[in-house]
Amino acid sequence: MSLSDLGEFGLIERIIERLGDAAARDILVPPGDDAAAWAHEGAAAVATVDSLSEGTHWRRDTMSLADVGWRSVATSLSDLAAMGAEPGPLLIAAQLGPAVSLDDLDAFVDGVAAACRCFGARIAGGNIARAASTSFSATAIGSARDGGALLRRDAARPGDAVAVSGAPGAAAAGLALIEEGREAQPEAATLLAAHRRPIARIELGRAAATAGLRCGIDLSDGLLQDLGHVAEASGVGIEIEAAALQLHPAAAALLGRDRALALALGGGEDYELALCGPAATLDSLGPGGDSDAGLPPLTRIGRVTAGPPGEAFALDPSGQRIDPVSTGWDQLR
Amino acid sequence: MSLSDLGEFGLIERIIERLGDAAARDILVPPGDDAAAWAHEGAAAVATVDSLSEGTHWRRDTMSLADVGWRSVATSLSDLAAMGAEPGPLLIAAQLGPAVSLDDLDAFVDGVAAACRCFGARIAGGNIARAASTSFSATAIGSARDGGALLRRDAARPGDAVAVSGAPGAAAAGLALIEEGREAQPEAATLLAAHRRPIARIELGRAAATAGLRCGIDLSDGLLQDLGHVAEASGVGIEIEAAALQLHPAAAALLGRDRALALALGGGEDYELALCGPAATLDSLGPGGDSDAGLPPLTRIGRVTAGPPGEAFALDPSGQRIDPVSTGWDQLR
Repeated sequence: MSLSDLGEFGLIERIIERLGDAAARDILVPPGDDAAAWAHEGAAAVATVDSLSEGTHWRRDTMSLADVGWRSVATSLSDLAAMGAEPGPLLIAAQLGPAVSLDDLDAFVDGVAAACRCFGARIAGGNIARAASTSFSATAIGSARDGGALLRRDAARPGDAVAVSGAPGAAAAGLALIEEGREAQPEAATLLAAHRRPIARIELGRAAATAGLRCGIDLSDGLLQDLGHVAEASGVGIEIEAAALQLHPAAAALLGRDRALALALGGGEDYELALCGPAATLDSLGPGGDSDAGLPPLTRIGRVTAGPPGEAFALDPSGQRIDPVSTGWDQLR
Repeated sequence: MSLSDLGEFGLIERIIERLGDAAARDILVPPGDDAAAWAHEGAAAVATVDSLSEGTHWRRDTMSLADVGWRSVATSLSDLAAMGAEPGPLLIAAQLGPAVSLDDLDAFVDGVAAACRCFGARIAGGNIARAASTSFSATAIGSARDGGALLRRDAARPGDAVAVSGAPGAAAAGLALIEEGREAQPEAATLLAAHRRPIARIELGRAAATAGLRCGIDLSDGLLQDLGHVAEASGVGIEIEAAALQLHPAAAALLGRDRALALALGGGEDYELALCGPAATLDSLGPGGDSDAGLPPLTRIGRVTAGPPGEAFALDPSGQRIDPVSTGWDQLR
């Protein structure tokens, strides 16, 4: 058996199993969710780590080192957003390959600083060392709002509605345009930004937890795959109506509606939030809702069902299951 | 100017400067110490990240993947020990190069689990991804004991005594023996273990903070260089008496006293603690002291002086400065 046979999620299960009592299974949110959470001085501490490796997660011909700095901050904060947690400080471990220059490092730091200013985060420490190849790992540490509950993957219940923020697929559309050499097309700009400078939905996660929602995840692997994680952890089924999905207008215009839909279902790295809960609570979030506070658009796209447990799928307007064009982004396959 | 011109510590200063208001300068312990600390729900949270990259920090011919797993846990916990903090959960980000097999990953996880059991730590989460080369970053999160004070680098005061735990230089002696092909020599075993399976001095850090000490650092870069960090951060001088240093008997026997002394002054990665404070308080720690609770040997080796500020040096029995044979281990040079 090889690493790629198991894939990222098989490996995580294997590691947790093999750690035995060295895995913290009895904490508030054990390994396997977007972030871990544990009791700390009477409150809940929340922490997550995310890595961006050259060649696996980014290439110099698809984004600048400043973009990588931004993404290091944004992707870690997104995991806290997916828990509805309040972000605290970040730590960044930089491993610099032989080709990294001082200018590159400066650009990375500038991207980190820009993202910190955008998200109201700060860097408390880190580590820097030479390595055979370049990668950055960012740890974000936070806390539960008002000592309250967190959004989790295992809290979806049959009857819940499912909503997603923004326009999933935009980041994958941006990457597709870069790879096709179409960066200069005027309408591409917002899609390129979605790929290079994603937004962590901290305010939405916070508002969702405050409004009483208990189930959320961020879109890192792709909508269907991420909802599949929720379905598996919660022991429920999830069905979404493809027609309800808000496709990014530029993605539809530049790539066609079919491809934009495929990327919305299967593309990854959007860092939008998917939330499950009562329809009225979901409707109260986002623009026009009771909790409107500059939140991103939040669109109801489907529902949680009793089963088949562990499956998330999309239906076309005639009620037929759509064969997922892509099954998402498993880094280890 | 290049990365290697600046070196690790020059780069850290440059990064903090460049981050501007995105660096958390006003927290309890800002960037630059062994770990960062900030107020969290009325208590002090402490966190640190450390990376081990293949080729820079370890090679397959000097240690096994299980050893790398152990060290990932031990080196991060050592930074908490150096703050006198109480360890909480760890997060580990694994970046797996093409040559890493499932057996390798299993061995790494076994080493992590063994270290967790040794130090009473647990893994709360992490990240796993393919990369062009292999590295592991471990984040350790903890808290101040009883909401109390932490050990810091900038708290040494003229008149303080300086003490160090264990036998510095043992890890560097172990690495030297490996590189000279002398692993099989019977007396080498404890030195090899010092290199491959270092001990985080959590109990000693905890006892030191409880006893009222306020200044500590762990020996990662080498005794003189690490005490130089204390001298610089505290604006003091530090002089140590080489004759007072406890050399590891096996290092002296296998490498000779002169070389063992050079490694004790300049070798790195021992993860022993150096502590500064009142002599009586230092004497109360360690075996035979008031706080004896299975603590490692703690030896007084010198004193803090008014200056020259920022300098740490060793004196021979005639009171002459010893020219440091090695200036320690700066990963970026």
